[in-house]
Amino acid sequence: MEKPSIPEVVIARLPVYIQKLNQLVREGQESVSSRELADHLGVTSAQIRKDLSFFGGFGKQGTGYNTITLLESLRGILNLNQIWEVVLVGVGHLGQALLSYQGLSRQGFEIVAAFDNDPKIVGKTIAGIRVLDVNEMQENVCPRRIPIAILTVPAGNAQDIANQLIRCGVKAILNYTPVTLKVPESVRLANIDPVLSLQTITYYL
Amino acid sequence: MEKPSIPEVVIARLPVYIQKLNQLVREGQESVSSRELADHLGVTSAQIRKDLSFFGGFGKQGTGYNTITLLESLRGILNLNQIWEVVLVGVGHLGQALLSYQGLSRQGFEIVAAFDNDPKIVGKTIAGIRVLDVNEMQENVCPRRIPIAILTVPAGNAQDIANQLIRCGVKAILNYTPVTLKVPESVRLANIDPVLSLQTITYYL
Repeated sequence: MEKPSIPEVVIARLPVYIQKLNQLVREGQESVSSRELADHLGVTSAQIRKDLSFFGGFGKQGTGYNTITLLESLRGILNLNQIWEVVLVGVGHLGQALLSYQGLSRQGFEIVAAFDNDPKIVGKTIAGIRVLDVNEMQENVCPRRIPIAILTVPAGNAQDIANQLIRCGVKAILNYTPVTLKVPESVRLANIDPVLSLQTITYYL
Repeated sequence: MEKPSIPEVVIARLPVYIQKLNQLVREGQESVSSRELADHLGVTSAQIRKDLSFFGGFGKQGTGYNTITLLESLRGILNLNQIWEVVLVGVGHLGQALLSYQGLSRQGFEIVAAFDNDPKIVGKTIAGIRVLDVNEMQENVCPRRIPIAILTVPAGNAQDIANQLIRCGVKAILNYTPVTLKVPESVRLANIDPVLSLQTITYYL
């Protein structure tokens, strides 16, 4: 089935719905109103209903949404009912924090390979992953068709490493560097930058 | 002067404009079209013109925006023409990465205090900041009226530490934990969560 064309801003909100629904399901809550979801996201309940209508509308007037059904539907839409293999490049403090962070694998993102160029780091095993030399990256990653990369290298190396990963078939990059990466249209890019987040906050202070 | 009411989504885009403008100014480019800014953000040029019209419209038909003028205006709107003091709580791998990251101070965010509860970390000096015991946080932070906190503690401690910081007058929190924090309306909250970013990506894979 062809996917409907859904605005990016709507897709970007779905993980936050999933986060809230995970919590509600853990707490044993069986249904949730659009108002309750709206409060969690800081949007209107009309917005919630409009967002979810893109996916066929899971709610019943007056009774709200069944939390488990909605959670499973949204996870399906975002292709989360599978394990996603991830390669991490750059095992400094930030890379080590991500290797050790169990929240990733718990949500189905499995870091299966890690690379660095620092002789003091290469060869170490961190959270069960042996760090390999970045010079071995292509021969190691290319045949494995790993779809997602996390980039935690110094800014100066970011574009070069990204290019290598994309040549090896990586389809999505989570970019922790402050560099505006140039990637082909077929590659998805998400950026995490504390400066951008802080600059959004200061408007309100 | 009273601030006009500007949608949050517009405010959230301004740091990305600033990022691009910083780059253009560094490269010596004197003017920029709405199309060029639009390409960088992945939105339409009509959107750019609409966004900037909230602030009185800095562009001239046909000649585009003066990069330095626009950059300075946007920095002024986001209150970035000052140094913002920041307290960091949780000096594990992620906290250490942020303490060592020069991009924050370069953009005017100065980490002036750091706290942890691990005896192996407390007392250490990292990137010029001596890590103090989290039990000393209140007496240390409250009198200094530090406006911004970065939270890099384990999930189980997040809400308690946030409460303590808010009681001490912190007005904004950059939350790296996967916890949905409850904060008063007067406190600004921004969340950085790699799982949410990755889940947005997988829709397109």
